Amino acid sequence: MLTRIDHLGIAVKSLEEAIPMYEEAFGLSCENIEEVPSQKVKTAFFNVGGTHIELLEPTSDDSPIAKFIAKNGEGVHHVAFASDDVPGQLAQAKAAGIRLINEEPVVGAGGKQVAFLHPKSTRGVLTEFCSPGH
Amino acid sequence: MLTRIDHLGIAVKSLEEAIPMYEEAFGLSCENIEEVPSQKVKTAFFNVGGTHIELLEPTSDDSPIAKFIAKNGEGVHHVAFASDDVPGQLAQAKAAGIRLINEEPVVGAGGKQVAFLHPKSTRGVLTEFCSPGH
Repeated sequence: MLTRIDHLGIAVKSLEEAIPMYEEAFGLSCENIEEVPSQKVKTAFFNVGGTHIELLEPTSDDSPIAKFIAKNGEGVHHVAFASDDVPGQLAQAKAAGIRLINEEPVVGAGGKQVAFLHPKSTRGVLTEFCSPGH
Repeated sequence: MLTRIDHLGIAVKSLEEAIPMYEEAFGLSCENIEEVPSQKVKTAFFNVGGTHIELLEPTSDDSPIAKFIAKNGEGVHHVAFASDDVPGQLAQAKAAGIRLINEEPVVGAGGKQVAFLHPKSTRGVLTEFCSPGH
């Protein structure tokens, strides 16, 4: 079952410019900044009532986030739903005709199980299922 | 203060096609379908742990959602944060240099106070502040 929206991934050109906006204009606090070399991104997390905003800055021109920004500009990159059963959730989606990017969950930040669904089969929304918690 | 992510607005070409995806592939239940003539949209709501997914189908070619889809394709249209003080939240954002679409809150669905921030000043994310609850 999908239990909540775990986080929204938002592609930005520069954390240095984007973080102050979320802090000063929105009144949120940056909890954590982390570099994820495998994804070629630097991330910053903000908690809003239990759902996180995950800002994603590309650290290289061939980062998936750099390519996203080149094509679409800055904006919402993906929507992540927490599930109490990621493999079962993937199986249900696949049975309903959804194309999976990850057929099996992979280990993501904080040791979470994560898996992505292809946006071409989810009406333009790059969708992630992940295990709950940090 | 921003207390939570109230909803995500997602632009779709057809509720008839999108609703079964959210129900069958994601296991969510459609709570409500409503037409909003002033916005030229038909909306469908799904609850995920207290945050709502709001699917938006244009009912006319000159609907803002029709224009969004023509430009960007289907996908995330806006992110709405619940605030316990919408006018104060707008004032804080404006003081931090954010361009407001609504200088004052307007009355939205369910009698909520709602106001939009211009995506050009919020790094590509059309952002809404709204009063909490339904």
